[in-house]
Amino acid sequence: MATTPEVSAPSRILIDGQPADRVSVLDRAVQYGDGLFETIRLAAGHPCQWQRHMDRLTLGAERLGISMPDTALLAAEVAEVTWGRHDGILKLILTRGEGGRGYRPPHPANARRLLLSYPLPANHGQEWREGVAVRYCQTPVSINPVLAGIKHLNRLDSVLARAEWNDPAIAEGLMFESTGELVGGTMTNVFLWDGRCLMTPPVDRGGIAGTVRGLTLELAARLGIDCLVTRLDRAALDQARGLFLTNSIIGVWPVRALPGRRFDPVQLPWNLLDRLYRAACTPG
Amino acid sequence: MATTPEVSAPSRILIDGQPADRVSVLDRAVQYGDGLFETIRLAAGHPCQWQRHMDRLTLGAERLGISMPDTALLAAEVAEVTWGRHDGILKLILTRGEGGRGYRPPHPANARRLLLSYPLPANHGQEWREGVAVRYCQTPVSINPVLAGIKHLNRLDSVLARAEWNDPAIAEGLMFESTGELVGGTMTNVFLWDGRCLMTPPVDRGGIAGTVRGLTLELAARLGIDCLVTRLDRAALDQARGLFLTNSIIGVWPVRALPGRRFDPVQLPWNLLDRLYRAACTPG
Repeated sequence: MATTPEVSAPSRILIDGQPADRVSVLDRAVQYGDGLFETIRLAAGHPCQWQRHMDRLTLGAERLGISMPDTALLAAEVAEVTWGRHDGILKLILTRGEGGRGYRPPHPANARRLLLSYPLPANHGQEWREGVAVRYCQTPVSINPVLAGIKHLNRLDSVLARAEWNDPAIAEGLMFESTGELVGGTMTNVFLWDGRCLMTPPVDRGGIAGTVRGLTLELAARLGIDCLVTRLDRAALDQARGLFLTNSIIGVWPVRALPGRRFDPVQLPWNLLDRLYRAACTPG
Repeated sequence: MATTPEVSAPSRILIDGQPADRVSVLDRAVQYGDGLFETIRLAAGHPCQWQRHMDRLTLGAERLGISMPDTALLAAEVAEVTWGRHDGILKLILTRGEGGRGYRPPHPANARRLLLSYPLPANHGQEWREGVAVRYCQTPVSINPVLAGIKHLNRLDSVLARAEWNDPAIAEGLMFESTGELVGGTMTNVFLWDGRCLMTPPVDRGGIAGTVRGLTLELAARLGIDCLVTRLDRAALDQARGLFLTNSIIGVWPVRALPGRRFDPVQLPWNLLDRLYRAACTPG
């Protein structure tokens, strides 16, 4: 098996504000995946789409019953962990903290903040310019309406889906419910374009409500481009004239190939895509 | 909010064979819940139902593509971490080890072994003798056929279900699929008894294939008691004459109450339950 080329190490880590690189084995993130995370683009030394990330984290914390950290404290720690880094990636993990044996959340709980600062991948931006080839994954999306949409730490479905291929020419894999409904990529949200209208799946049973997905819905509305949030399946993919993927680090990836299908990215609504790409990597 | 009374601390921890109590924040258990666990009863200084736990761990490791540790090495470490403890609980966590950013599993990966030794709860055995009151949980079970049955670390559904109640008089909550099918308790498997026949739900879409569940199916067959593995719903619970719960630590809990319903545990097939309880806490 080839070694993984894109493995990157964080250059700095803060745990509850202190430089450290290890957590207690009793932390419930270790024991049960009991926590949340955000992966945030850094540009010009600052986090991008910060408020969207905080909004999703807040929603997830409410859903899981985990205390949100003070946002001013968090912002100060983000400034510290990213200090001196112009472009990069900030990963924020919020765990329920340490607990005893058993699923029951401890009361009181001391939620824990992990902040990790990473460099951008060396080839960052290439897929935006050239488009990507995408595959279909066999691993189904985990379904739970209570956990859908939020960015929690139970991510084995995406892990197993991403383990399905090693070919570096394939940038992403699309994931479906067991019943065939499209949900998104292993690490992205997906938008279909029929020449007039955008379509993207709801994230009410599985998947994550991406920050750039939210931005796409808003920008499309502002540009007068209809965007339907609707159930989609393989037939909808077969009929699409174009396709693009979004997440907070990549911004936007135009899709140029699915299995047995090639797309001409020129067909996509570039007035939207250009704005999206810029907005996703604009600090603030 | 009352403090959690039953929180217990492990008395000894080994990480990859060494005394330690912290793991890297880059461990994929922290990042994605990317691993497996077993919770094993200790009796007379030895793990109970060891082979069943190893069989399930092996199946889970195959499913997730994580290397199984050498079982002789593991057995030696178990002996070390439980040394001097007569009765108790052994928790074994197997993680995919450390990785870079992103869902893709690292190649090569160095799977990590965490072993934690706990005392038995002070009131252990009381529920076996007296029976338990059980509630219905609102939180649905997470559904994914690829992850069903194995004891992986993505356990937020059980965490949220267990967070639904604080009443110490309620020992367990039953969990259902969103579509209404019974799956099991937050930490147990469930068996219904109609006076002649046992019934238990399949664990092919969600839930865990408990070691004592497996033991129950085998012992029932040996005793000539029919046991159907079949889809069950609230109507089946309403019609049941009796109910019991199983897991590796509790062995068996007879159920004496569901919401709006009382059971006489005397109705249950005690020739089976007695054997089960003894077998679950017999070393070997």
